[in-house]
Amino acid sequence: MSEIIRSSNTTWHQATVTRGRREVLNGHKSYILWFTGLSGAGKSTLAHALEESLHRLGCRTFVFDGDNVRHGLCGDLGFSADDRQENIRRIGEMSKLIIEAGVIALTAFISPFREDRRRVRALVAPGDFVEIYCRADLAVCERRDVKGLYQRARAGEIPDFTGISSPYEEPEQPELMVDTGSDTLAACVEQVLGYLQQTGRLPEGADIRAHALA
Amino acid sequence: MSEIIRSSNTTWHQATVTRGRREVLNGHKSYILWFTGLSGAGKSTLAHALEESLHRLGCRTFVFDGDNVRHGLCGDLGFSADDRQENIRRIGEMSKLIIEAGVIALTAFISPFREDRRRVRALVAPGDFVEIYCRADLAVCERRDVKGLYQRARAGEIPDFTGISSPYEEPEQPELMVDTGSDTLAACVEQVLGYLQQTGRLPEGADIRAHALA
Repeated sequence: MSEIIRSSNTTWHQATVTRGRREVLNGHKSYILWFTGLSGAGKSTLAHALEESLHRLGCRTFVFDGDNVRHGLCGDLGFSADDRQENIRRIGEMSKLIIEAGVIALTAFISPFREDRRRVRALVAPGDFVEIYCRADLAVCERRDVKGLYQRARAGEIPDFTGISSPYEEPEQPELMVDTGSDTLAACVEQVLGYLQQTGRLPEGADIRAHALA
Repeated sequence: MSEIIRSSNTTWHQATVTRGRREVLNGHKSYILWFTGLSGAGKSTLAHALEESLHRLGCRTFVFDGDNVRHGLCGDLGFSADDRQENIRRIGEMSKLIIEAGVIALTAFISPFREDRRRVRALVAPGDFVEIYCRADLAVCERRDVKGLYQRARAGEIPDFTGISSPYEEPEQPELMVDTGSDTLAACVEQVLGYLQQTGRLPEGADIRAHALA
């Protein structure tokens, strides 16, 4: 039932449905899985494959990536340094709301700067932010070049391209590092699922072998 | 399993966990309940009370209101006409993502302009946007003045205050109109729950009487 709370000059209506109650209803905790790494490292592929496994395990999930953010919520932003910072800030704020809603947020953005990632981490409680470094050598990413972006960046068509003309600042203490440059997708998914289970972030008794990638 | 799809020059990794699969997992549909009305009409109170009932019925819900949006995602925005429009746009985009995540979004903002509300409606599929007009006479809202804002607006301390120095454009064809100026909170909640059940938006067999406000 909504209660009215009075505090100094402010009156507001308390939210009685809390994150805790939502987590009980869902049967699992919520948290942010923040994938960071070079373009082409496999962040989005890993996030979506992991989401598939988590969904099969009965978890509520949502992946934020360029496809659903850059055209919508951040559609007003360009690629200047300021706009990129604002982009990451909004993704952080949105992820914070999503975990408040009881949903596991998976974010797949290069997010090359330590300070930007640190700011997002500071938005939420300890344990709510799981930084996953998708490590792949620049040479590997450039060889893959799935979107043809490296070629364009080398040709000078894309300014401030991470790894080419703008730095990527490796995480110093990520919760997890996955070797997306050399390991298979299945192995990477298994590694993340194992970590989540060890740290009590999966539904009780979840059988991760049955639900990892076949 | 993640699939790679190739379309002209773009390669991306398909999201296999869809809104439809999330709705099946949750046992209910997702949609936006967009509460609009004057300051003090009772939007936030109704949204939170309704959320309590929906949660008890087993629904995943999230309320967006000034408390969790103005300090976070929209913390960079002021109260100019442009900023207010951008505020509503972002809330719309965020609600779109939340329903994509399978969660029922309840938004409690004055949102005084038809054009802003129309834009949000146009962001999502027909049926995803349920506009609920919380109707209360200005005199009633001003008498309540729970936040003391009307008094400050009358004193000229708050410019462009809806109902005083800025217009409120009533919805012309809202999905629902609730008389929050005169009906009890319980009656308003019951009315909305009844509408949601009639339109197939509650879990099958939901007993709304047992879960309405006592």
